[in-house]
Amino acid sequence: MSTDSTLERLHDAPGSGSFDAAWHARYGTQLDASLPEWNDTLETLLSHRSVRAYRDQPLPDGTLDTLIAAAQSASSSSNLQTWSVVAVEDTERKARLSVLAGNQAHIRDAPLLLVWLADLARLEAVAVRASVKPEGLHYLETLLVGVIDAALAAQNAVVALESLGLGSVYIGAIRNAPEQVAAELRLPPHVLPVFGLCVGYADSSRPAQVKPRLPQSVVLHREQYDAHVQAPGIALYDKILSTFQVQQGQSEAAWTQAVERWRTRESLHGRDRLRDALASLGFELR
Amino acid sequence: MSTDSTLERLHDAPGSGSFDAAWHARYGTQLDASLPEWNDTLETLLSHRSVRAYRDQPLPDGTLDTLIAAAQSASSSSNLQTWSVVAVEDTERKARLSVLAGNQAHIRDAPLLLVWLADLARLEAVAVRASVKPEGLHYLETLLVGVIDAALAAQNAVVALESLGLGSVYIGAIRNAPEQVAAELRLPPHVLPVFGLCVGYADSSRPAQVKPRLPQSVVLHREQYDAHVQAPGIALYDKILSTFQVQQGQSEAAWTQAVERWRTRESLHGRDRLRDALASLGFELR
Repeated sequence: MSTDSTLERLHDAPGSGSFDAAWHARYGTQLDASLPEWNDTLETLLSHRSVRAYRDQPLPDGTLDTLIAAAQSASSSSNLQTWSVVAVEDTERKARLSVLAGNQAHIRDAPLLLVWLADLARLEAVAVRASVKPEGLHYLETLLVGVIDAALAAQNAVVALESLGLGSVYIGAIRNAPEQVAAELRLPPHVLPVFGLCVGYADSSRPAQVKPRLPQSVVLHREQYDAHVQAPGIALYDKILSTFQVQQGQSEAAWTQAVERWRTRESLHGRDRLRDALASLGFELR
Repeated sequence: MSTDSTLERLHDAPGSGSFDAAWHARYGTQLDASLPEWNDTLETLLSHRSVRAYRDQPLPDGTLDTLIAAAQSASSSSNLQTWSVVAVEDTERKARLSVLAGNQAHIRDAPLLLVWLADLARLEAVAVRASVKPEGLHYLETLLVGVIDAALAAQNAVVALESLGLGSVYIGAIRNAPEQVAAELRLPPHVLPVFGLCVGYADSSRPAQVKPRLPQSVVLHREQYDAHVQAPGIALYDKILSTFQVQQGQSEAAWTQAVERWRTRESLHGRDRLRDALASLGFELR
């Protein structure tokens, strides 16, 4: 798209922010680079925050169709489209899935839970109909293709829903008990529930804020990976995140305390047995 | 509506498109649902096509900063931020990586190659500095977290770059030879190159088209997975994709012939040994 059309878009943007404001919210530092023209899509992307408090309000007609169209517009490895999604709106089912996923209340509160699947069963069924023995199905690589396909699709849905004024939060805890989730959703073998996504209108009385991230100098490498430049950026980020969390009424725990998540096998909340779960879902992971 | 008129529309100013046109391009069928109001972000999302033909034109200043800011704005599991990215612009390095990734010419032609990494080394280094033995690092689950984090981030970058008028294509073949890619990029242990992403201006003399996808009825399930409804949608899609491909001067191979990708171990192009590669990159995958 031309610069002209981007400009036009900027003029059309109703009361949109600016790159400087979005950058400051995302990094807690001043923007010191010369950046492209701001546009509505960048505004949507950079304003992302996870929403865990939802209004009791249904989604407008056509929302789900729109999110799925956005999701399917994401790239798919060799166009194999090795993902599916289950839309759960039933109150009882959401409640049961909530229990399986660490008892997170927002799974019950959101009007829609999308469970994103790495789905190798669809192409497997095609192979069976064509009398092909799909040997490639059984490799770890093929599972990764499904996981990546599902993640790209889901993220497009997130951007789409935020452009519509909705909010969402990913539920990684759907992997706490993959077999039980698979049973609840009647998944065939060779389908892994990768993560959930709660979707709904944010409760403005309990607003979520943009969370600061690591400085770009820590995650972006030029030409080759450089481990040595990371420490100062991480030290700075510890301060920025602590300050942010205190402002939010949360603990001032520095980011580096995130290592607690990896301290023991138990800190994985059951996901230490993902390999066993995958085996029981039919994945050989050669 | 023809594919030609869709293309025409995409070259117009944002806002000139419509849900009907975008839907038709994406599914090859008429839209029969009542959808929300169209916006620029949906236009960007639904208009996605992979670009493999690039103009010899550098990226504007600030492009990379913008893409990384968008990428970092994606959700990250427990805010662990277990991903990094290497920006490769050096001609010789791009050429070497191209050879490692199936000799794809567009890796050489694009001004920028982003290699997205599942990066468990950063938090591992933090743990070592804190004298924590990060047991959780060694589980398959933790690798998946890194892969998902990287995919969500990369997809946000794709949406951002398309909003800026740029094009891109994912390079899954970066996993054909992970150890060699790791050596080229000097990755520390516990870092996996997940995929590449070529970024640049599309060569308008060799335009890419929106590729039709499976009908929503095939990928979207309500409440529980339903394998039985999929066959008619897949049969319809075979026809739509064949027609599209013939229009593009490609083979009329139906989508169901994609099962050839899984027929043998060899059809994985070396990625059948991903587990060995992961082992040599230090991943235990417990």
